[in-house]
Amino acid sequence: MTSIYDADLAPNKANYIPLTPVQFIERSATVYPDRLSIIHGDVKFTWAETYARCRRLASALQKRGIKKGDTVAIMANNTPEHIEVHFGVPMCGAVITGFNTRLDAAMLAFMMNHSETKLLIVDRQYSAVMKQALAKLEFPPVVIDIDDPQFVGGELLGEKDYEALLAEGDPEFDWHWPENEWDAISMNYTSGTTGDPKGVVYNHRGTFLNAMGNATAWGMTHHPVYLWTLPMFHASGWCFHWTVTAMGGTHICLRKIDGEHMFAKMQEHPVTHFTAAPIVLNMLVNTPQEKQVKQNAVVNVMTAGSAPPAAVLASMAKLGFNVTHVYGATEAYGPNMVCAWPPEWDVLPADEQAKLKARQGVRTQFLEKMIVADPNTCEELPWDGQSIGEVLMRGNTVMKGYLKNPATTAKTFAGGWYHTGDLAVRHPDGYIEVKDRLKDLIISGAENISTIEVESVIYHHPAVLEAAVVAKPCEKWGEVPCAFVELKPDHSLTAEELIAHCRAKMAGYKLPKHVVFGPLDKTSTGKIQKYLLRERAKHV
Amino acid sequence: MTSIYDADLAPNKANYIPLTPVQFIERSATVYPDRLSIIHGDVKFTWAETYARCRRLASALQKRGIKKGDTVAIMANNTPEHIEVHFGVPMCGAVITGFNTRLDAAMLAFMMNHSETKLLIVDRQYSAVMKQALAKLEFPPVVIDIDDPQFVGGELLGEKDYEALLAEGDPEFDWHWPENEWDAISMNYTSGTTGDPKGVVYNHRGTFLNAMGNATAWGMTHHPVYLWTLPMFHASGWCFHWTVTAMGGTHICLRKIDGEHMFAKMQEHPVTHFTAAPIVLNMLVNTPQEKQVKQNAVVNVMTAGSAPPAAVLASMAKLGFNVTHVYGATEAYGPNMVCAWPPEWDVLPADEQAKLKARQGVRTQFLEKMIVADPNTCEELPWDGQSIGEVLMRGNTVMKGYLKNPATTAKTFAGGWYHTGDLAVRHPDGYIEVKDRLKDLIISGAENISTIEVESVIYHHPAVLEAAVVAKPCEKWGEVPCAFVELKPDHSLTAEELIAHCRAKMAGYKLPKHVVFGPLDKTSTGKIQKYLLRERAKHV
Repeated sequence: MTSIYDADLAPNKANYIPLTPVQFIERSATVYPDRLSIIHGDVKFTWAETYARCRRLASALQKRGIKKGDTVAIMANNTPEHIEVHFGVPMCGAVITGFNTRLDAAMLAFMMNHSETKLLIVDRQYSAVMKQALAKLEFPPVVIDIDDPQFVGGELLGEKDYEALLAEGDPEFDWHWPENEWDAISMNYTSGTTGDPKGVVYNHRGTFLNAMGNATAWGMTHHPVYLWTLPMFHASGWCFHWTVTAMGGTHICLRKIDGEHMFAKMQEHPVTHFTAAPIVLNMLVNTPQEKQVKQNAVVNVMTAGSAPPAAVLASMAKLGFNVTHVYGATEAYGPNMVCAWPPEWDVLPADEQAKLKARQGVRTQFLEKMIVADPNTCEELPWDGQSIGEVLMRGNTVMKGYLKNPATTAKTFAGGWYHTGDLAVRHPDGYIEVKDRLKDLIISGAENISTIEVESVIYHHPAVLEAAVVAKPCEKWGEVPCAFVELKPDHSLTAEELIAHCRAKMAGYKLPKHVVFGPLDKTSTGKIQKYLLRERAKHV
Repeated sequence: MTSIYDADLAPNKANYIPLTPVQFIERSATVYPDRLSIIHGDVKFTWAETYARCRRLASALQKRGIKKGDTVAIMANNTPEHIEVHFGVPMCGAVITGFNTRLDAAMLAFMMNHSETKLLIVDRQYSAVMKQALAKLEFPPVVIDIDDPQFVGGELLGEKDYEALLAEGDPEFDWHWPENEWDAISMNYTSGTTGDPKGVVYNHRGTFLNAMGNATAWGMTHHPVYLWTLPMFHASGWCFHWTVTAMGGTHICLRKIDGEHMFAKMQEHPVTHFTAAPIVLNMLVNTPQEKQVKQNAVVNVMTAGSAPPAAVLASMAKLGFNVTHVYGATEAYGPNMVCAWPPEWDVLPADEQAKLKARQGVRTQFLEKMIVADPNTCEELPWDGQSIGEVLMRGNTVMKGYLKNPATTAKTFAGGWYHTGDLAVRHPDGYIEVKDRLKDLIISGAENISTIEVESVIYHHPAVLEAAVVAKPCEKWGEVPCAFVELKPDHSLTAEELIAHCRAKMAGYKLPKHVVFGPLDKTSTGKIQKYLLRERAKHV
């Protein structure tokens, strides 16, 4: 029987509209037309200007036949164009994809082919690799160049440059509201350590929600001044293109991410927020002291990708950075978990704080469910800080799925949960702590060994530059840890010395039984390829 | 043709879940179990406790057969029970409605009958009127008493008290996630100046979104300490039950709203936020100076209902209150527009600031569309600060519709817009300024006269206590303004003197042609009933 609360109360045009983050720019352009939207060196735009430029882009794309469901790709640094495409492309119904700037020609060609890219926007800096990639395509897209005076070199590949493309468009273009909030808005390739990259599809609903989730997870006030240290191509910039715009903030662009450039921007502008991997925090800490200058006494930082080390956290705090540790995945619209920080923890000893902050935390208000569970049964494990299981998510900030890849999509959503592939424990207070990648875990004599844990001990040895631990098959134990180690220049170390170093800090069954010195196998994007190391370990 | 971004990418259990604000309490109870959730005098709860109490309530209701689509009503002040029902009732699928505490027995009986109330929770303070109301019902609901020691008097009407009801329930109750985000969560009667009250139905989607919209419109950071000055029954507390819970804040209860009680709470607790009508701000300003003490130097205030007068704004600023003017309607989930304040305006002269702040502003990030338009054609009017039209809204923070009232629902959503019934101009900067209620506007010789404008001039006369201006039919002009005025005790004034006072401040055609002295007709809730005054004006 229909309840009285359903009778004659169906959705209609007045009370149901597809959620979309594109509307944020219309609002900011109306409310704050003269406030700065984007700063890129000497180039400064207001929100009225940025909105007009995005509408021009949408209009120009539409005139060229780009329509709903078409792919527009960009290969660029953190420059204004990269922000504009996140509004202008969906304004004509198309889908934006940003390429990792470190990719090689074969990979780029694969992606343009797979995504059926209709139009490509490329910065001169990447003209060489892109020229090779385009040459491989049977049906190459229209190519538009970003001709940024801040970069010297490269060549113009396309039929015209980005500014000339905008000139084709109408600044008053009546942009398309999505017909359905489930419609795709962007797509991001995960670099993937095995096989072809997977295209993670985002929709309007999820990006709207995660954009707002960023704001509330961070307790963000009005008018953030956001420094773009996170690559804009990475997981649609974790939705921060949309968050910063929604909050009437200012995007500070940055072509080159290093400590000096970041501090220079923080000195020039009243930067309030940025997001960066712990390695970038390390760059800041190691910037020469005389260059560690910034306008704001405290700058808010979100970090993710790996747990920030205690020493880095301590140094960051001393420099006036308030670090929030977040966790997520490309498949989860960037971060949708946060190491929420009750004020009571501020008075704990520094090492205790660092330990707490190294945890990946709890869901934000915009992720509905998260459990640590048996990956096969999806049964939740106890919150005991001991039981290792896979991190599973369920909610509106989980991707639509993988492009043209129903088998992997189905596998990733097995049991009605998004399987992150990360192994974690859940502490009694509900916070999770990631221990390893599911496929990297070593099972030795029925005991689980976290390769991350073994690696972190190895990293503490002063002679070690990089290390990776993988499973080596073993008749007696099933598997045993095998360490691959690259030493710092002019340092030496024997396997015995390294194992002795480890013995002091871990249980015997976790010790590496084999140590191999030399360079590690990596992808073009710098990710260590453990599957190759596992192959090598078999023959050690 | 299906685009590549739709093929094999339908919603599934992992990536689509109905939005609901109920999940906020599960999160806060997990993340901040020991932080204070609700403070009511000496009674203090933590989030873990509040969550357990809400689950007990849901469980107890379910055991009594309360199910999806059933109505649970509450008549209470701003006490903990009133917060708990906003979680516990939807946790069993039912719909919560809060009664205005000033209603009379006939109206309460109408509402319980109309909403088919299954269970009523009532504070002892309202036992007398409720007893009469219940006596009028053929099928009275189960009655549960709130037996608050902070109130002396009244009687217990029901079969047991609220705490005993909770004792029936399971604190670990596996509460119901809504099946659909369009499902009703709450219903609010608008007092209505004519005819029967209308039941405004809210759903899970809209309350989730407006709860988060409150946070971002206000730039709210973590852990707000929110003083409940807004009646909790009013438009589901503008969704602040859910906002404050989502942000891990603390609800400070208050049975009696006046300046001294409010300051006492602000002295006792580090209050960061509250919401109140301008009349309440006036109470604060007029509190004896020695009692104007508060812990926090600056407290954030949202005000709505009418434009805050310049003098009140100036005094509030001096007392350390940061006032944000918002606008909305019961039909709009409370406020979903805001007089957004660019920091540049801080340096303007005080009177200029007051003028800007008196405007109702712009949509929040959670209302998709708002126009000032011709009410009949829904055509948008120019942003010229002159053209008066109706405020129309379209978006996800617009109600489902009116309960059992399809004709009025359809009329209110005519043309695919929610018709607010408010007349406004839109200034060139996009901010709206409400001029009158649509039905109150006077059209005299084809000129529009805002009754609010005439009233505000009359109010400036020192002898005037209250005033209302309505249209009186006139053969020559169509309509002319007729003023009803109640004088302050021991003051006297003639019609001629009042008209002379007005003449100095407005165009001749706007002058009241008739003045009637004496008490004004009002509803039980204190709202002036202009439709009765219009009837009287015909015979003046």
